[in-house]
Amino acid sequence: MKKSALQKARAAYQPKLPNVLTGSVKAVAGKPTQSVANQEEIKALFPSTYGLPELKFEKNSTPSTSSPVNVGVILSGGQAPGGHNVISGLFDGIKKIHPDSRLFGFIMGPGGLVDHNYMELTSAIIDEYRNTGGFDIIGSGRTKLEKKEQFDKGLEILKALNISALVIIGGDDSNTNAAVLAEYYKNINAGVQVIGCPKTIDGDLKNDLIETSFGFDTATKVYSEVIGNIQRDCNSAKKYWHFIKLMGRSASHIALECALQCQPNVCIISEEVEAHNLTLDDVVNNLANVVASRAAEGNNYGTVLIPEGLIEFIPAMKNLIAELNDLLAAKADEFAAVHHSEQRKYVIEHLSEANATTYASLPEGVARQLTLDRDPHGNVQVSLIETEKLLSEMVAKRLATMKKEGKYNGKFAALHHFFGYEGRCADPSNFDADYCYALGFNAACLIQSGVTGYMSSVRNLVKPSSQWLCGGIPITMMMNMERRHGEMKPVIQKALVRLDGEPFRKFASQRDDWALNTCYIYPGPIQYFGPAEICDQPSLTLQYESKN
Amino acid sequence: MKKSALQKARAAYQPKLPNVLTGSVKAVAGKPTQSVANQEEIKALFPSTYGLPELKFEKNSTPSTSSPVNVGVILSGGQAPGGHNVISGLFDGIKKIHPDSRLFGFIMGPGGLVDHNYMELTSAIIDEYRNTGGFDIIGSGRTKLEKKEQFDKGLEILKALNISALVIIGGDDSNTNAAVLAEYYKNINAGVQVIGCPKTIDGDLKNDLIETSFGFDTATKVYSEVIGNIQRDCNSAKKYWHFIKLMGRSASHIALECALQCQPNVCIISEEVEAHNLTLDDVVNNLANVVASRAAEGNNYGTVLIPEGLIEFIPAMKNLIAELNDLLAAKADEFAAVHHSEQRKYVIEHLSEANATTYASLPEGVARQLTLDRDPHGNVQVSLIETEKLLSEMVAKRLATMKKEGKYNGKFAALHHFFGYEGRCADPSNFDADYCYALGFNAACLIQSGVTGYMSSVRNLVKPSSQWLCGGIPITMMMNMERRHGEMKPVIQKALVRLDGEPFRKFASQRDDWALNTCYIYPGPIQYFGPAEICDQPSLTLQYESKN
Repeated sequence: MKKSALQKARAAYQPKLPNVLTGSVKAVAGKPTQSVANQEEIKALFPSTYGLPELKFEKNSTPSTSSPVNVGVILSGGQAPGGHNVISGLFDGIKKIHPDSRLFGFIMGPGGLVDHNYMELTSAIIDEYRNTGGFDIIGSGRTKLEKKEQFDKGLEILKALNISALVIIGGDDSNTNAAVLAEYYKNINAGVQVIGCPKTIDGDLKNDLIETSFGFDTATKVYSEVIGNIQRDCNSAKKYWHFIKLMGRSASHIALECALQCQPNVCIISEEVEAHNLTLDDVVNNLANVVASRAAEGNNYGTVLIPEGLIEFIPAMKNLIAELNDLLAAKADEFAAVHHSEQRKYVIEHLSEANATTYASLPEGVARQLTLDRDPHGNVQVSLIETEKLLSEMVAKRLATMKKEGKYNGKFAALHHFFGYEGRCADPSNFDADYCYALGFNAACLIQSGVTGYMSSVRNLVKPSSQWLCGGIPITMMMNMERRHGEMKPVIQKALVRLDGEPFRKFASQRDDWALNTCYIYPGPIQYFGPAEICDQPSLTLQYESKN
Repeated sequence: MKKSALQKARAAYQPKLPNVLTGSVKAVAGKPTQSVANQEEIKALFPSTYGLPELKFEKNSTPSTSSPVNVGVILSGGQAPGGHNVISGLFDGIKKIHPDSRLFGFIMGPGGLVDHNYMELTSAIIDEYRNTGGFDIIGSGRTKLEKKEQFDKGLEILKALNISALVIIGGDDSNTNAAVLAEYYKNINAGVQVIGCPKTIDGDLKNDLIETSFGFDTATKVYSEVIGNIQRDCNSAKKYWHFIKLMGRSASHIALECALQCQPNVCIISEEVEAHNLTLDDVVNNLANVVASRAAEGNNYGTVLIPEGLIEFIPAMKNLIAELNDLLAAKADEFAAVHHSEQRKYVIEHLSEANATTYASLPEGVARQLTLDRDPHGNVQVSLIETEKLLSEMVAKRLATMKKEGKYNGKFAALHHFFGYEGRCADPSNFDADYCYALGFNAACLIQSGVTGYMSSVRNLVKPSSQWLCGGIPITMMMNMERRHGEMKPVIQKALVRLDGEPFRKFASQRDDWALNTCYIYPGPIQYFGPAEICDQPSLTLQYESKN
């Protein structure tokens, strides 16, 4: 593997371990916990792992002696910067327990466990991946661990390899599955602990004890770098509106963090759109008004940040998509026979009045996308909708009307961007490198403590890493019941952007200024070697939340 | 202006000036020069500025005494990282000539000169922009300075401000205009020198004495950062082919440099496509063969770099576009009356056989784009064609055929990216910060030497900046005659990728390995504060070319 100069230099970086983990540790149990909602149902579903106490590690004056432990590790779901450091921290942690401990990686995600596809991760391999981005050390995958047969199949290989603990590095769904697996293994006395680690660039896996998921810091810094560069271009050429969509399945944390970093002219927050019950037209009109206000000052340029999940937060669009899914399922054959040029008319005639109006307001390309590109279950593929183009087209149309009414007299030319894959596998920032290493090392401490069904928790993250607090929280504590594919299921509650939270309030208090005036900030690329105020700052979301 | 931590730290960076410029300098004239081609025509068009000698600066033992000089500066054309440093170097250079020298910036490009739109650039303003990206200090524009009335109008304001020298920072077209302006002012004894500076991220403004244009280094490093990140994602998820288009009007230097940095599976070089007279089908088949070879090894993923200018280098496409332009101009009214659904058929029936075949092979979206989206002159807008989607669609079609023939048995899912605006206004790398500062400072030295029609030349760039060589080259030396809008014009010859040059040869010698195997390199973000091998390396193109 030929390496860049930066890769070589970063290999030598030694993540800063929290003080508490540097010596021998003891787990101190707090009070028993409750799930965030639906306590009775969750308790019934997790009889062996519900209500466990929070754990906090403290320094232990007497060194512990332990036997070697064999551990398995899985990377689950979308990539996030720092995954390799979770694994290297875990590796170093179990080697500290005993030098003969061994680490096995299951290949290409949870499927590797079921299919018995694995490799041993030796120090030679680990050393090649320290402080690097990506999940390529063992690959990742999206197989869901949900069924008893999968659990039993997995147990075969765990037993064969004498693995007594499994660490699942994943987002909310993967950690939900980790909890189910922990419960199952505990219940049948399988002798395998299951520990989760909070991963997702989306930033929606958090609570009081999980302050942030790893990868969010790095990904938002990469996006802010390119957004800042585009803003500087925008402010130099002064002739384009840049519509920038940002990855993030559902919550708008990424867009909000990038807005706080870069101060764009507009940033749409899906949670606010939903809370105010805005229609697509409302969103478009708000945008068009900002464009017109700036044009009145002679500024025919600007930047708009759009969260990827927006469409599903617009109640009218959500209703339309739900009815379209039903309609196209029920009338699949009839619709297939309708001529291409007549399809739009057909759909409008068969929808309820409110949804027909919404559908008729959509540009042709988007309307077609909604009826044609459906997933294997026949559902509309919302993620394929180019929201950034949809919005700019609708804004252009609205501005044309405003021009006729004498309310707008400017030029509007739009450019489009979508950032996602650029940030998921970036080299982790110093923050994520340290945080991930601590999460992995801390997972080893949880294993040593003998617990199962816990998520690795490292807190106090706005402080220097030496002062970080370490411990574990029962995954069931984060759960509630939600409808999935028509059934009520126990799942980890997603943390959406809170409109009463400090990050949003900070944004909301300044955005009118950012809209009319040009207040761009240019964060530049992630730095690894310079002064701490450049290299070691956590996300603004984390900084503002810690002030709450 | 609220600034990021990095902006604040970078403001303190002191660009490293070449030794020769640190004291008093004298200009040493070399031999008279010739234009690269069409010597007689160029000489006739530039009677006062043709054939001037190359100039090389040497240290002067006797300090020179000079009077204050008022200088104007213009940013012309697309942004490139480092423009602010050219201006700050120029500012420091004329202040060294005499502390009472003054610098005036013309606003929003050459149009500012003609419209008398300007501002004085004081040290307070300059200090706000040192080492930053963007052209926002005075803005840029694309007005072409070509006409006598513009030159005369410009002279009015130059005289009013007592400006005796004008520095035009631009690409090949802008420097061509600078040469014409220099000739005109010299010819009428206007008393205004004109000096050019070589700017363009495209990297196509270079020769033996201009080793690279500024901005190329930074822009390609930004693109390589995000390409590297995407490659790591690609190698982790192992399920997508990423088709990545890179900005660059015509030459493929950017794509080639990024390929050398990142080692993607495929990089298309337009100049090679043209040299081998490849059709669009050839390009598609080559791509499909790589996809199939990788699939045979179980690797259904990869990366493809595509230069923005590709389409115009495919002879068959160039012919098609030319005939389409003529056809749609001649039959504009008739075509407008053709029903939407019949347009494709109409076009095919009215094209010559070869072009009709090419047109018929295009996916529907692209075919429509070619006939609908035309510029104000009625011409097809090639830059709007989404080449990255065009290629992936055609590859998918080709693979479907290969599958039927039993020649391919894999999965093909494509994702698309276009990088351009992300890199044009990035904070300049240390290399570009130093190079640009030297170009600007050197321009001040050329002004002090009393010459006109010269381009600022800083060479020996692969060496430490202390050893860089400084001087000037007559712009006419870079010129030849080319057809523009139906007329033969003197223009600076574009430097395309040379297939016998070391950068291409290096690429060509390794690409078969990169295609089949996965040899990705992950360069990571530009670093400013770390070890020199990470922070101060010039582009690989420059490094390989210097070995020639």
